[in-house]
Amino acid sequence: MSHFDLPAGYRFAGLASGIKKSGKLDMALISSAQPADCAGVFTQNRVIAAPLQITQPKIATGRCQAVLINSGNANACTGDAGLEVAQKTAELLAEELVLPEELVVVASTGVIGVQMPLAPFENGIPELVAALADDQVTAVAEAMMTTDAFSKLASARDEHQGTAYSILGLAKGAGMIHPNMATMLGFVLTDAAIAPVLLDTLLHRAVKKSFNSITVDGDTSTNDMVLLLANGANGGAPIEAGTAAAEQFSLHLERVLLDLAKMIVRDGEGATKLVEIRVTGATDEPSARTVAKSVATSSLVKTAFFGEDANWGRIIAAVGYSGIDVDQNRIDISFNQIPVARNGLTTGPELEAQATEILKLDDFVVNIDLNQGQSEASYYTSDLGYDYIRINADYRT
Amino acid sequence: MSHFDLPAGYRFAGLASGIKKSGKLDMALISSAQPADCAGVFTQNRVIAAPLQITQPKIATGRCQAVLINSGNANACTGDAGLEVAQKTAELLAEELVLPEELVVVASTGVIGVQMPLAPFENGIPELVAALADDQVTAVAEAMMTTDAFSKLASARDEHQGTAYSILGLAKGAGMIHPNMATMLGFVLTDAAIAPVLLDTLLHRAVKKSFNSITVDGDTSTNDMVLLLANGANGGAPIEAGTAAAEQFSLHLERVLLDLAKMIVRDGEGATKLVEIRVTGATDEPSARTVAKSVATSSLVKTAFFGEDANWGRIIAAVGYSGIDVDQNRIDISFNQIPVARNGLTTGPELEAQATEILKLDDFVVNIDLNQGQSEASYYTSDLGYDYIRINADYRT
Repeated sequence: MSHFDLPAGYRFAGLASGIKKSGKLDMALISSAQPADCAGVFTQNRVIAAPLQITQPKIATGRCQAVLINSGNANACTGDAGLEVAQKTAELLAEELVLPEELVVVASTGVIGVQMPLAPFENGIPELVAALADDQVTAVAEAMMTTDAFSKLASARDEHQGTAYSILGLAKGAGMIHPNMATMLGFVLTDAAIAPVLLDTLLHRAVKKSFNSITVDGDTSTNDMVLLLANGANGGAPIEAGTAAAEQFSLHLERVLLDLAKMIVRDGEGATKLVEIRVTGATDEPSARTVAKSVATSSLVKTAFFGEDANWGRIIAAVGYSGIDVDQNRIDISFNQIPVARNGLTTGPELEAQATEILKLDDFVVNIDLNQGQSEASYYTSDLGYDYIRINADYRT
Repeated sequence: MSHFDLPAGYRFAGLASGIKKSGKLDMALISSAQPADCAGVFTQNRVIAAPLQITQPKIATGRCQAVLINSGNANACTGDAGLEVAQKTAELLAEELVLPEELVVVASTGVIGVQMPLAPFENGIPELVAALADDQVTAVAEAMMTTDAFSKLASARDEHQGTAYSILGLAKGAGMIHPNMATMLGFVLTDAAIAPVLLDTLLHRAVKKSFNSITVDGDTSTNDMVLLLANGANGGAPIEAGTAAAEQFSLHLERVLLDLAKMIVRDGEGATKLVEIRVTGATDEPSARTVAKSVATSSLVKTAFFGEDANWGRIIAAVGYSGIDVDQNRIDISFNQIPVARNGLTTGPELEAQATEILKLDDFVVNIDLNQGQSEASYYTSDLGYDYIRINADYRT
């Protein structure tokens, strides 16, 4: 039994198909009892993996019923042969589920530049379909993992006009020094009824405040995608754009995605801390985001977090090179509630010693007040320690 | 005796003033026998250290005779008090050298946000002036070091209309994951006679191909500066703009700066390898630079170098997210002369095994041919290993 709020009308399956030499789970299926409305967000990388080339146009139609996922091989930089395999897997799954092929999408994550074999899918797809069950959602989350230390699930539950709905999110990805090539896959399922145009709006808004506040627009992998499916299986009235119900759904969606995004940061390869970089007092929200990103992605700041060193000099320098016009003599910096810099100057050794205690926590906030305006934004980052090197130096061996 | 080509009319001194608790050299002086023409390149960080606020306007006048340098304290984020100390040190040095104060400039590197004491300068400056000597250049290079594992010197020698001239460069800095807050100081001295306007042109050109090909425009520290002094002490005819002699000088200057830049990369904190990322076949030079930078600054690519893994998938993904419009099906990648990807596809396990041998070298080239045009650019980077974390996690302790 799962302790998550499971939306109605979805079944799940995961198995070890052999793509991963370790014998771990590496193939998964999410299947809706009926065609779902859907929306997606995809990588902005110019190098696009084969599964994205198959999936992106299908999601654009706004309808989807089944998602096939594999880990261990990204099927990226695999040319026409890779595209053929991706296409063939979608066809095999459609046949097995007795669905129109255009309702079946595929996603891959793993090593780039290695040809994807078809055999694991020929054997795996019938097994997956046979194994589909309401309660196998954790198997799907596990089968998506690559360098992830743990699987990532989050959910929410509410009701609309007397009918309950659930939102369930599954994600894979590990934070890293900005996750520039860490494939991030996210699948969000709801049994509410919501039309594709509204889904698209809500998904983009929620992704901006979650997955795109731990990563960077241009810095996405060849395989990144987040899909949102709404199958209306709760039987309730549709949630309409511009209503309070849509805002309510939006808040739940944002919370589920932010929970998943924070898990990705916390699972930053080798990460031991989850740090929110909160920039306030900016002239506008994009400026606040740019400054927060600059600090959150600074390797020197992140190694200082690992060293539990309240090194606000590195933080203010990262503010300075963000490209945003700041006044160094107005910048305040604190760790949780402990100020370490006021008007760009140290608050002294006593407060810095208190701040050092904050850095020993697993979870804290760096507040940077630019004192220029009223806008704010947050980025979430991790510390940078030895394990990042260990995991990534040996990834393919 | 130094084995470098020393330009005439310069004297040097270095000492341990006590700013560094370790007792290592931390204060240095370069003094010209006569006022030199000069040019400078300065940080683009919005947070600017006190010494830069003093030095930048003086260099803009085109004349300079003495440079005072300290390590151990950056005198950055130190407000009016820090500015006063920087100003006072320039005054003390001018007095001791019996020079107009406007010919004396200052440079600092070290920890940010700690007030700079005046006492080490009050004691150190008279000692430095008393110790000035032709052959103390290595003491200056050593006194500039912070996390540097070795001091950095390079030189060139040629003649102009029958009169010999030398170019001597001193630098400090360590590569890091793009050196976003590693202060880079560079001082280049020549005894040729060259007017400030030409010096400025030549310096900017040389910096672009050297120090700015290991770092990033916006990503500079609060304290970065490169100064070029030409004191004409060789007694020869001035080198004029638009002549073959100016081009010849320019080539020597570029070589000296590139030598220093490569030393900085090789001294990347914990670096074990020097890797040139050479992008060819780009539609224009800025595009080639952008792609090269994207690959050179990818932490995943750099950890793969550390792991000696010919992981071209991470390289092509970094090409893809560079923001430049590339065609993934036309990209060729090789390590030295060994091709690992052609038209975006693997060349097979045999060549990849050969490429893995290249990665065991201390020094190699990653060639990325976009096959779109005729332009090219290089960036220099290091691998990313455990020692980077060790050095930076404990920097202030």
